[in-house]
Amino acid sequence: MAERIGFIGLGIMGEPMCRNLMKAGYACTVNTRTKSRAEKLLSEGAVWSESPKDTAVKSDVIITIVTDTPDVEKVILGEGGIIEGISPGSVVIDMSTISPSATQTMAAALEEKGADMLDAPVSGGDTGAIAGTLSIMVGGRQDAFERCLPVFEAMGKSINLIGDHGAGQMTKLCNQVAVSVANLAMAEALILAAKAGLDMEKMLAAISGGAAGSWQLSNLAPRIIKRDFDPGFMVKLQQKDLRLVLGAASELGLGLPGASLAHQLFNAVEAAGEGDEGTQALVKSLERMSGVEVHG
Amino acid sequence: MAERIGFIGLGIMGEPMCRNLMKAGYACTVNTRTKSRAEKLLSEGAVWSESPKDTAVKSDVIITIVTDTPDVEKVILGEGGIIEGISPGSVVIDMSTISPSATQTMAAALEEKGADMLDAPVSGGDTGAIAGTLSIMVGGRQDAFERCLPVFEAMGKSINLIGDHGAGQMTKLCNQVAVSVANLAMAEALILAAKAGLDMEKMLAAISGGAAGSWQLSNLAPRIIKRDFDPGFMVKLQQKDLRLVLGAASELGLGLPGASLAHQLFNAVEAAGEGDEGTQALVKSLERMSGVEVHG
Repeated sequence: MAERIGFIGLGIMGEPMCRNLMKAGYACTVNTRTKSRAEKLLSEGAVWSESPKDTAVKSDVIITIVTDTPDVEKVILGEGGIIEGISPGSVVIDMSTISPSATQTMAAALEEKGADMLDAPVSGGDTGAIAGTLSIMVGGRQDAFERCLPVFEAMGKSINLIGDHGAGQMTKLCNQVAVSVANLAMAEALILAAKAGLDMEKMLAAISGGAAGSWQLSNLAPRIIKRDFDPGFMVKLQQKDLRLVLGAASELGLGLPGASLAHQLFNAVEAAGEGDEGTQALVKSLERMSGVEVHG
Repeated sequence: MAERIGFIGLGIMGEPMCRNLMKAGYACTVNTRTKSRAEKLLSEGAVWSESPKDTAVKSDVIITIVTDTPDVEKVILGEGGIIEGISPGSVVIDMSTISPSATQTMAAALEEKGADMLDAPVSGGDTGAIAGTLSIMVGGRQDAFERCLPVFEAMGKSINLIGDHGAGQMTKLCNQVAVSVANLAMAEALILAAKAGLDMEKMLAAISGGAAGSWQLSNLAPRIIKRDFDPGFMVKLQQKDLRLVLGAASELGLGLPGASLAHQLFNAVEAAGEGDEGTQALVKSLERMSGVEVHG
């Protein structure tokens, strides 16, 4: 018999992910902070539950995808939380991006109830959530992973068990380090070209195919030269993830000077009121610093 | 009638580039600082000339590929240099990576002799030089570019005229900014994973295909986890190029904090006696800083 799914958090990511589970035939009980966000899914056959506790009572696999570490802690460990309703043998899958060490603490608390936990943050954005093509980075026990693989497969394409509890979150943080510093690499190449008066499109055509090449250069640089700062991924969410990165670095005793620099430059972007723009707005920090603007 | 080529600088890049010109049917007159470096090409049909001046006297198109700005200045403007032997209507193509502003000064000096100049630095390394698949970034006049296109095509595949004198050099510097900061992005993702005890290969498999993806991540990270620091491109040459980048930024009044950080971390790599290793040795600077080593 298919797992009964509980789904908590119906934001820009959660709603389409839950829809894909329903399309794959899973019965879904849902809960989210603002009930009106659930209406569309309820009209499509999802069942409302009044609290995370209630969701856990009615489900075998409970998925959480909320904003940050304290939100997940509240949903799992708080009053009326999952831990009050969960049965032995159930699994909590947290697909938010949060602290790896907090994840380990929650996994231990759930284990005391006989329940299992997988951390399974995603990348691929809302387009990947809608298309069911997310990359899912998983931490936790092999048997829980194998049990939940069909659930993951309804939402994503590249699904990797990396290691024990927290390893999925840590991999996501490694991803965010690489993403944000590669963004800086792209932005600095553009700003040098702009200040020197180069033809941007010719410069990009000349360098994008070689050792300078990256997803950021191929996908974000063309938007910048059109002055398109619409969000694929918002600055304020990148900043939340960089705070997790720098928090983990601090816990581990690790220096990450490049990620730290990206975080500082993004602080200045947020200070200019551009936190809701896409991460390509990093270049604006460099533009203001040196009085130049990147144009096509 | 095909251009008579003069070729000055028969190092690890110049020798195979000159050989490809000869294979394409060009008669080549060669000069290099140490004559013994020319012996192989001379046995293959190249003709020795005693000085850059003498090379210029005997050639329609004179190619230079030497180490740094002062070397090119000496070869073109110095005693016994190209400028003393060049005829009106000839073209100097400098394929070294040097200062864009010094390039403009030399182009002006050659123009007074009725000669033209193209700056045409390359990327693709010695393997690209041997295979004739270099990327060539060109600055200078359109007519000179078109005249020399068959010469470039004997040595490279992606050949782009970017703009006026210096634009090829500036594009190469943009390339080096993107390369060195993308290298830092990759190194910081690896060092976080190592300190957290993640399985490196699983982590890389999970992040390399998405928004974190880059040439550096796909090509250099796998070498690092095998502790392979053999040079594709040497640290000391990357540093030479970063000095050009930071010099250009200073002339232009531009802040490049990421490229500057990469340069500083490479200083520490050089201080450890690793300047002849590949640029992936950047990670060693982070490793020593935080007392951790990246392994597969």
